[in-house]
Amino acid sequence: MTEEQARRALADCRERIDSVDRRILALLNERTRIVEEIGRIKQERSLPIYEPKREDEVFRNVTENNGGPLSAEAVKRVFERIIDEMRVVQRQKMERDS
Amino acid sequence: MTEEQARRALADCRERIDSVDRRILALLNERTRIVEEIGRIKQERSLPIYEPKREDEVFRNVTENNGGPLSAEAVKRVFERIIDEMRVVQRQKMERDS
Repeated sequence: MTEEQARRALADCRERIDSVDRRILALLNERTRIVEEIGRIKQERSLPIYEPKREDEVFRNVTENNGGPLSAEAVKRVFERIIDEMRVVQRQKMERDS
Repeated sequence: MTEEQARRALADCRERIDSVDRRILALLNERTRIVEEIGRIKQERSLPIYEPKREDEVFRNVTENNGGPLSAEAVKRVFERIIDEMRVVQRQKMERDS
């Protein structure tokens, strides 16, 4: 591979990553909107926000469906961060509404 | 909303979240494969793995394209975790290959 070929191949990879990232971003926001919907239902029925059993289900769903190359541990750490951020959104929403 | 209606609405939201999560998972693995491709190109041409300027580009791409409801800070934190995990993959790959 010449230097010019490498430069072009890297540029192509980066464009593909940026496109994947924008699709991940859209799904993260879609997920947030569903979490907000759950928040509204729970608030109306005075149900608890935090349900550890449901979190286990979320982790199981992604680790069982993981074909790699990311390891199960890496997938779990990414989804822990995602769930954490959703909790921040729910807390802020409840503070605004109260 | 009756209790039964709330129960059904929550179950529906959770199914939608599980489906969104599986799509995020597929994209995370697609991103990892592209990062592995970048690793191979860089190794062949002896280029540095870590490029802070490129990381800034990645954050700019997602924060500039973020329509919410997730905040820019939340998006940045999720992508920091994703980039961290990709770095682990690259390090492990280089250790295997060396």
